[in-house]
Amino acid sequence: MASDKSKPGRLPALRVTGFRAAGVAAGIKKNGKKDLALIVSDKPAQVAGLFTTNSVKAAPVLLDMKRVKKGVASGLIVNSGNANACTGVDGAKVAEEMTALAEAALGLKKGSMLVCSTGVIGVPLPIAKVASGLPSAVKALGYDGLPAAGEAMMTTDAFQKAGERRARIGGREVIIAGLCKGAGMICPNMATMLAFFMTDADIKAPLLAEALKKAVAASFNSIIVDNDTSTNDTVLAFANGMSGADEIKAGTKEFKEFSDILTSLSVELAQMIVRDGEGATRLVEIEIKGASSAQDARSAVRTVAESFLCKTAFFGGDPNWGRVMAAIGRAGISMKEERVSIEFNGVRVVEKGLDTGKEKEAARAMKQDTLVVSVDLKSGKSSDRVWTSDLTYEYVKINSAYRT
Amino acid sequence: MASDKSKPGRLPALRVTGFRAAGVAAGIKKNGKKDLALIVSDKPAQVAGLFTTNSVKAAPVLLDMKRVKKGVASGLIVNSGNANACTGVDGAKVAEEMTALAEAALGLKKGSMLVCSTGVIGVPLPIAKVASGLPSAVKALGYDGLPAAGEAMMTTDAFQKAGERRARIGGREVIIAGLCKGAGMICPNMATMLAFFMTDADIKAPLLAEALKKAVAASFNSIIVDNDTSTNDTVLAFANGMSGADEIKAGTKEFKEFSDILTSLSVELAQMIVRDGEGATRLVEIEIKGASSAQDARSAVRTVAESFLCKTAFFGGDPNWGRVMAAIGRAGISMKEERVSIEFNGVRVVEKGLDTGKEKEAARAMKQDTLVVSVDLKSGKSSDRVWTSDLTYEYVKINSAYRT
Repeated sequence: MASDKSKPGRLPALRVTGFRAAGVAAGIKKNGKKDLALIVSDKPAQVAGLFTTNSVKAAPVLLDMKRVKKGVASGLIVNSGNANACTGVDGAKVAEEMTALAEAALGLKKGSMLVCSTGVIGVPLPIAKVASGLPSAVKALGYDGLPAAGEAMMTTDAFQKAGERRARIGGREVIIAGLCKGAGMICPNMATMLAFFMTDADIKAPLLAEALKKAVAASFNSIIVDNDTSTNDTVLAFANGMSGADEIKAGTKEFKEFSDILTSLSVELAQMIVRDGEGATRLVEIEIKGASSAQDARSAVRTVAESFLCKTAFFGGDPNWGRVMAAIGRAGISMKEERVSIEFNGVRVVEKGLDTGKEKEAARAMKQDTLVVSVDLKSGKSSDRVWTSDLTYEYVKINSAYRT
Repeated sequence: MASDKSKPGRLPALRVTGFRAAGVAAGIKKNGKKDLALIVSDKPAQVAGLFTTNSVKAAPVLLDMKRVKKGVASGLIVNSGNANACTGVDGAKVAEEMTALAEAALGLKKGSMLVCSTGVIGVPLPIAKVASGLPSAVKALGYDGLPAAGEAMMTTDAFQKAGERRARIGGREVIIAGLCKGAGMICPNMATMLAFFMTDADIKAPLLAEALKKAVAASFNSIIVDNDTSTNDTVLAFANGMSGADEIKAGTKEFKEFSDILTSLSVELAQMIVRDGEGATRLVEIEIKGASSAQDARSAVRTVAESFLCKTAFFGGDPNWGRVMAAIGRAGISMKEERVSIEFNGVRVVEKGLDTGKEKEAARAMKQDTLVVSVDLKSGKSSDRVWTSDLTYEYVKINSAYRT
């Protein structure tokens, strides 16, 4: 995986009818890299959004939560290098001003743009730099601009994360493009995760919101790099209907198809975040089967994925099932130890709660970039799955050395 | 702290009227160190116990939970090197047999001994080694044997943990001696924490249980090294009344005094565990004030103490208040960001939710073995406090390298 990180795969085209975008360097990042992005739809788009559940919400999150309720937006201004979080009343003004500057420069209606910020917490965002960088961003806007916009969203990301899906829905080909940033909770004080979806499908905001909610549950809400949730997490979806395809209506097979490709794209992007987890050397899939309720299944997968001891064992490639058993035991779920089976990459190390003597075989099977830990509780019919990373020296190094 | 670990302080005398103890090497540990302990009271003692909340409970835990209900026990047999956990029906027989062997060797009534095990999970405990080591343990029993018994409880502990308290209660001096083992959740598959208190005070089991519950809440249940809870955690208290002091009755100042010194001794032992946390370089005290409920205060301290990002920042000596704020924000408590203040070792880095510009001063103040992180939510009158350690390279090394 270390080598993957230095050589990210080629990005797809990311061209969606009617969406122009740009990414430029405005001087917010000290290293001179791109840090200001614009994404604009030629026609006002239907919009849906999901936001961090952290009680401490950054100023742009609070503004977007209000604006998304209208169900319509023309686009988005994004900066990296500063999260505009824990910045009080002044921060709220700055978020509002960023959208106002973009709306004025683009000749758009007041209140029609959304805003996202990612970077350091607690430091005032220099609005003057946004203002001075904006004209070049507007000038750079183009239908092939999404990759540049994605680049301008990056903070500690080792590689750029993007993907697309195409499908014939409602008589025409529709496209969904996705941009995303995030790597672990992210280097100190960096906001976790931003993901934006742009589609030329014709779908109304409430239905788009339904599809987005489902997609996020199966993807971004099913990855755990560390157990921290950021002040700035934001997922937005814009649909401008400019493909010319028929409108997607509730309860149809077209809606199911749209929802499925949005979910599949979200899972692809979410797995990229885990692969780019700070210091991560393995993508680890934790699967719980046979739980007596959906809530039990979720508690069990989360507890294993968040366990310091399980995550260090995954790093060491150690089939240390005792740690997995102990984690499930403290998850507060209904379980019987003597029914549990545990597998590492298909090798069963525990059967009916007891050691099978196959640890050496399991250790060999674990020598891979991807590790699947599968637990069957044999207590019911519910199952769940999350993706996580291992806990490594590099994680400690990145997160202890920052800023000091 | 690294130097502290290689040079543990001198142990106190640990002599309590009527308690004999011994610790010997029975060959359960492969390195030939002490691994079998006996602690026996000359007269049957009143007994109280608290046990792991993990659903996966080791065989000796299940046996002790039953026996402690009687309120009377003569003593305890302990082994290290093997936890007798996840060992099924055979493990339960082995636990029972350990007590039976000890009872026979000591001429005690059947069912009068308790048993604790700590070490590797999922491997059958070799009862033959216990049987062959027992005669030398019985022979070695003496009133000055508690330090040797404490030594035989150690697994990955870098130093032995013990303490005592003396007070004049009920007309005579009474003593409480405490032995304890634990360092982090403990090296893979090692059981977390055992603590035993022996006192010559005269106090009935229900009242002893009340004092023990209070002491454990303020100490062992207020330390968080990592977020894992072991299958074997056990705290036991034995009171044989042999000091000759008057019986301690409920609601008296004598009971309060007894309860206070038991709590103070428990806190001393619990802090030793944190100082010995795997790879720890700092003892970190997290304090939450001004919470709107006791539950909120506990959620907030736990969330900060369990945060990977906070713990790596503590290791780096980085006054990274954004991580503390983000952790509190996701703790699911009632809070207003704009009221929060945060201090690192007395230096206020956040006031009313905003940066005070004192990070450099705070970074200097943090260059100490002990770090106090104090958060005032200014939302109510509840407070709480836990002790934890930092997350270091060494932690990852110890926990990923074990066994592989």
